[in-house]
Amino acid sequence: MTGQRLTDLHGSLRDPLLGSIGFLNEVMGRYPEAISFAPGAPHPEFYDDVDVAGHLDRYLRHLETDRGLAPDAARRRLFEYGPSRGLINDLVADLLRRDAGIHTLPEALVITVGAQEAMLLTLRALYTPGDDLLAVADPSFVGILGAARMLDIPVVGIEETADGPDLDALAKACTAGRRIRAFYVAPDFANPGGGRMSVASRHRLLELAEEHDFLVIEDNTYGFTAAPGQERPVLKALDRSRRVVHIGTFAKVCFPGARVGFVVADQRVAAHPSGGDRLLADDLAALKSVVTVNTAPIAQAVIGGILLANGGSLAVPARRRAVRYQQNLDHLLRALDTWLGPSPRAGVRWNRPDGGFFVRVHLPVPVTLALLERSAAEFGVLWTPMAQFYPTGAGDRQLRLSCSYLDAEQIDEGAARLAAFLQEGL
Amino acid sequence: MTGQRLTDLHGSLRDPLLGSIGFLNEVMGRYPEAISFAPGAPHPEFYDDVDVAGHLDRYLRHLETDRGLAPDAARRRLFEYGPSRGLINDLVADLLRRDAGIHTLPEALVITVGAQEAMLLTLRALYTPGDDLLAVADPSFVGILGAARMLDIPVVGIEETADGPDLDALAKACTAGRRIRAFYVAPDFANPGGGRMSVASRHRLLELAEEHDFLVIEDNTYGFTAAPGQERPVLKALDRSRRVVHIGTFAKVCFPGARVGFVVADQRVAAHPSGGDRLLADDLAALKSVVTVNTAPIAQAVIGGILLANGGSLAVPARRRAVRYQQNLDHLLRALDTWLGPSPRAGVRWNRPDGGFFVRVHLPVPVTLALLERSAAEFGVLWTPMAQFYPTGAGDRQLRLSCSYLDAEQIDEGAARLAAFLQEGL
Repeated sequence: MTGQRLTDLHGSLRDPLLGSIGFLNEVMGRYPEAISFAPGAPHPEFYDDVDVAGHLDRYLRHLETDRGLAPDAARRRLFEYGPSRGLINDLVADLLRRDAGIHTLPEALVITVGAQEAMLLTLRALYTPGDDLLAVADPSFVGILGAARMLDIPVVGIEETADGPDLDALAKACTAGRRIRAFYVAPDFANPGGGRMSVASRHRLLELAEEHDFLVIEDNTYGFTAAPGQERPVLKALDRSRRVVHIGTFAKVCFPGARVGFVVADQRVAAHPSGGDRLLADDLAALKSVVTVNTAPIAQAVIGGILLANGGSLAVPARRRAVRYQQNLDHLLRALDTWLGPSPRAGVRWNRPDGGFFVRVHLPVPVTLALLERSAAEFGVLWTPMAQFYPTGAGDRQLRLSCSYLDAEQIDEGAARLAAFLQEGL
Repeated sequence: MTGQRLTDLHGSLRDPLLGSIGFLNEVMGRYPEAISFAPGAPHPEFYDDVDVAGHLDRYLRHLETDRGLAPDAARRRLFEYGPSRGLINDLVADLLRRDAGIHTLPEALVITVGAQEAMLLTLRALYTPGDDLLAVADPSFVGILGAARMLDIPVVGIEETADGPDLDALAKACTAGRRIRAFYVAPDFANPGGGRMSVASRHRLLELAEEHDFLVIEDNTYGFTAAPGQERPVLKALDRSRRVVHIGTFAKVCFPGARVGFVVADQRVAAHPSGGDRLLADDLAALKSVVTVNTAPIAQAVIGGILLANGGSLAVPARRRAVRYQQNLDHLLRALDTWLGPSPRAGVRWNRPDGGFFVRVHLPVPVTLALLERSAAEFGVLWTPMAQFYPTGAGDRQLRLSCSYLDAEQIDEGAARLAAFLQEGL
């Protein structure tokens, strides 16, 4: 029997980061009765009215009526391989113009298998192993950290504040040694930090990018959760010099099971051997052809049908969801106040973000996977240890609570269990 | 305006391999009226009876009836994130037992975004940049070459014969210098070589793997096209010592637009920090969590529904398709005989494979992208230059013809145009 030594496998597989993702899933699976503050998943109520067959039909009719395809040719689009760049780029470009103030041509877009593939492709295009640094907010989404680890890209963490990443620290890091090629940031309600960049900080970040010659990789997953009237422009809408690669997903406002996301990469790449300039999106599509070939056409067609059903904008469904998540977040913060009282055990405190899915809780002890196991087994409540979100290894005394997936009663019961765990279980 | 220098991007983007994939697609797009021998895509007639909504319903009923899920919980499986490992592993394990003689547990499987993602994950798990070599049949599928290029894995080509790769050459390469960690091979009707390994060669390859301590990455995309009674066992069915990582796809027998493939990786990985042994499949799933998170659940559900509709086996639909592709291949070979005559122009010759989608034509001149452009513009016929399939850079005087996508009349007309091009256009 052939055994493989772990030391013979790629280094990322010995990294606690990738290991913990698997372990977390495994713990979840073993405690199905626990209340879980772990998944950053949409609330299941929003799946009730998804009519897959109806959306497929709507997209087919669009191909026939608006794009002039014969019914047979339209139908084939669903079943055949398609271009690596994507099928619904025109609809997504239109959406970005309407909903985000981003003006981009369909050719500057690549439709990806979720935001995750967009991150991987962007990092691969921009980096050669062992060369430049990737700067990230510290803490950051595990997906960007994992993709960087998988591609052997060294990461430098920039401390996250309530106003997003500390831009003075970023400016300093740019002159501290190795070149920073790109900076990953979620300007609105970052997962897991919960910070939100002011408009002034957004402008300053773009100036820094210009001054220090780096690209900004913008992740706009949680922007839609802003309270009405509190929306702020995405970085890409402020970007006058093509410094921003903009990544988005349909997982939160449509549904995750389609695995459809996108990346806007309108940067020009000079002197390509194929003749003349091309766009960074062309290079991302070329890389995609050796990662997943293309994003499942049937999944793209469902998302296309949802866009068409909403008149090309997702503002209305996004608003409906934002209301739910604002309520859940408020409810979670109130429940923590109620159950942990005005003066919780020393060292226990939490942040109060204005949007997004997540609350961070600081503990007086290290938050390990063993502690999670105990919380699940003895107190019936699950959450996410924060250490995996920190490239610097800081944050090992924090846990993340997600409120998106639960109902009010579950949040109350979960907060009560969490309070019991924090008061008796540490 | 920020420009990116191509020299600042990852080296794979300067490689003719990735560039040519994009250029090929672009040429195809510019000559929609040309007859195309280029795409290795299934014949469109097989899309006529795909009932997406029906297959989704069938999979949902299976979750309710056979797996005991409540209707709501079953429905959520389609719309939520799912495990990186996959949703339909049990159905695929059952399929492999019935149709391929592969006995594997569902846990040793990962459901991937086509065979392409399976290749990328496998290579990433097994390789560290700049370290071991990947051996491949020469020529090989561009997808494995592209994935290796994207991950900076050095490749050594092993000449392909009618009996598959030259195993003496492989044995020699194993002792020639740098370690060969894995060998990629499509034992049946390889794309583009068309070779097929004898049963004896299959056994010998497994012995070599044992002797020289490498893994075999088996790609079984075209095995189903064997003539009735001419089937040969896949390497994984002969594998007694877990030397084979087996990759498959539902693109050719179901449909490409689902983008669903899989990998069997039942190798044990010793001493994992998560405690005890685990399987290589666990590591592939961990990597998948930072590449695509999971394979679109709605796409997996459609494939699951097709498997259920066929009683857990794809033998019947595979047979129906094999008949069509055998007829197309025979038709193409006869048309070449007819149009190019018994003594074609000096230096023009082609192989006569027994299965698969592809015929290789040798030309007396270099087969460049410029030549393809001329063939399309002046003679109305498209094909694929072979140089991109050769890691050694050999094969630059060959082109590949695919017969899978065309009808008999199109094959006749295309062969006539190709003959005109070969006789007047070189």
